[in-house]
Amino acid sequence: MTRPVCVLGLGLIGGSLLRAATDAGRPAWGYNRSPVAPADGYDVSSDLPATLRRAADADALVVVAVPMTALQPVLAAVAEHAPGCALTDAVSVKAPVAAAVAQHGLAARYVGGHPMAGTAHSGWAAGSATLFRDAAWVVAADDGLDLDVWRDVAQLALVCGAHVVPASAEEHDRAVAAISHLPHVLAAVLAAVGGEGGELALSLAAGSFRDGTRVAATRPELVQAMCEANRSSLLDALEDTLTRLTNARDSLRDNATLGSTVAAGHTARLRLDELHRTEVTDVDLTGPQALERLRALGRNGGMIRRL
Amino acid sequence: MTRPVCVLGLGLIGGSLLRAATDAGRPAWGYNRSPVAPADGYDVSSDLPATLRRAADADALVVVAVPMTALQPVLAAVAEHAPGCALTDAVSVKAPVAAAVAQHGLAARYVGGHPMAGTAHSGWAAGSATLFRDAAWVVAADDGLDLDVWRDVAQLALVCGAHVVPASAEEHDRAVAAISHLPHVLAAVLAAVGGEGGELALSLAAGSFRDGTRVAATRPELVQAMCEANRSSLLDALEDTLTRLTNARDSLRDNATLGSTVAAGHTARLRLDELHRTEVTDVDLTGPQALERLRALGRNGGMIRRL
Repeated sequence: MTRPVCVLGLGLIGGSLLRAATDAGRPAWGYNRSPVAPADGYDVSSDLPATLRRAADADALVVVAVPMTALQPVLAAVAEHAPGCALTDAVSVKAPVAAAVAQHGLAARYVGGHPMAGTAHSGWAAGSATLFRDAAWVVAADDGLDLDVWRDVAQLALVCGAHVVPASAEEHDRAVAAISHLPHVLAAVLAAVGGEGGELALSLAAGSFRDGTRVAATRPELVQAMCEANRSSLLDALEDTLTRLTNARDSLRDNATLGSTVAAGHTARLRLDELHRTEVTDVDLTGPQALERLRALGRNGGMIRRL
Repeated sequence: MTRPVCVLGLGLIGGSLLRAATDAGRPAWGYNRSPVAPADGYDVSSDLPATLRRAADADALVVVAVPMTALQPVLAAVAEHAPGCALTDAVSVKAPVAAAVAQHGLAARYVGGHPMAGTAHSGWAAGSATLFRDAAWVVAADDGLDLDVWRDVAQLALVCGAHVVPASAEEHDRAVAAISHLPHVLAAVLAAVGGEGGELALSLAAGSFRDGTRVAATRPELVQAMCEANRSSLLDALEDTLTRLTNARDSLRDNATLGSTVAAGHTARLRLDELHRTEVTDVDLTGPQALERLRALGRNGGMIRRL
């Protein structure tokens, strides 16, 4: 059974998802608040109630692909027009979305998702059916989730060309705070400190500064929205960073050495370069331990290539 | 008059400098503690007193290209065997080297230098006559320096294919702390925080984390030596960083916003991308204001392409 797909929000992510699912032969349609152009033959509408009633009639998988800041009214509409549909999302943070979904009484058939792809551009026109090819697509695997919906969401990710990384909502939010949101904050701070050095410092800037500040060139409103949505986990990552950086400063000031800071960073970076990914092409989605097995797979760096 | 060049220390930087000067037609010879191989026809020795007596006889420009940690015995040998020679260096920090040079009574004919080039590799075998092509080569421009030696050092940099950026020793050390040493410390800290996230976090790491941790893969002993040699200025840069990062944490915690952090970083990074470099092909090295004019040139992002 291939469940139809109903995409709400046709920006870079939602627009790419509609294209990828359609091109893979899935019945798929989408809604966007403002009309998208050119629609290029994709099945799009700017009537949210009608789009959702169609999803309810077809028993579609509904994908919420609006920004975090636009989440509440869209979930309210889902609760009104398609409360029984399988539901997922494509927002970059998972625990806050799960909480909002529960507030709207939609938790029973919800399995969160996060396709980890993007470009410097945004909007429907920037989308592409190939955006998710070889990207990681996190699918939430918290206890209590509906395993049938889990399979539907994972299959959608695979159909779009991504590989599936299962994780609990909390694990996901902690991980992306450290490897995606914190790098943006550090890039901003490094750029600002370098800028304090004036034209002389900037004119001497070489690879280390350029690499370390590259993502500070991203549109500020996107960075801000992404980081602020993951506030709780990002605050934990910032505490860890402040502790380590204070230790580095103290060690350099009091003992004239940065040995342990540099060694710890080197070891961690080598782990990234040498990371061994377990590729799984089938998972057992039955039994009471299924979700715990999925979480363990993700925790060990594993990914699902086929179901 | 083209003064001969005597290079002390034939690692990546010194070895490349000897090759570049020789290939450009300069009389040039070098010393290394251990014999280099293959010498490829370059004029090299592992006898330091003999190398320096030859420099004294030929009135050569002596270039100290040993690591900071090996500086003292080399300067002692210069003071013993070639105390009257014009003297420069290629160490990545300037004020501490100038202080050591003064301790050895060699300040009168010393003008510090810092060719800002490098690769991931080190040692004579990794060197190349083209290493400095289009690189910045900072030449110290503190008041009281000998302008004739200044010209010699700047001409050596130009002969090697670099462009000259004049700066006081303090200005140089502050600038490289912000744009070269701080990025290494932040990369190490970011890598360590990401590593705390385990295989899940590393398996989700995308461009922002890879870019931000890239230089953490550098050999730790090189990073440590480079950062620790610039301790005083790096401590200032770390204080600035800690203040900005603490403000970011407080703002996110208390007001749920990272707006000012992200905006300041974005503005500074755009300045880097839009930096306008003034290219100068002649400078006036006469008169009491010559060194101040040079410093002003560097402070405004200018560089010297020809003398």
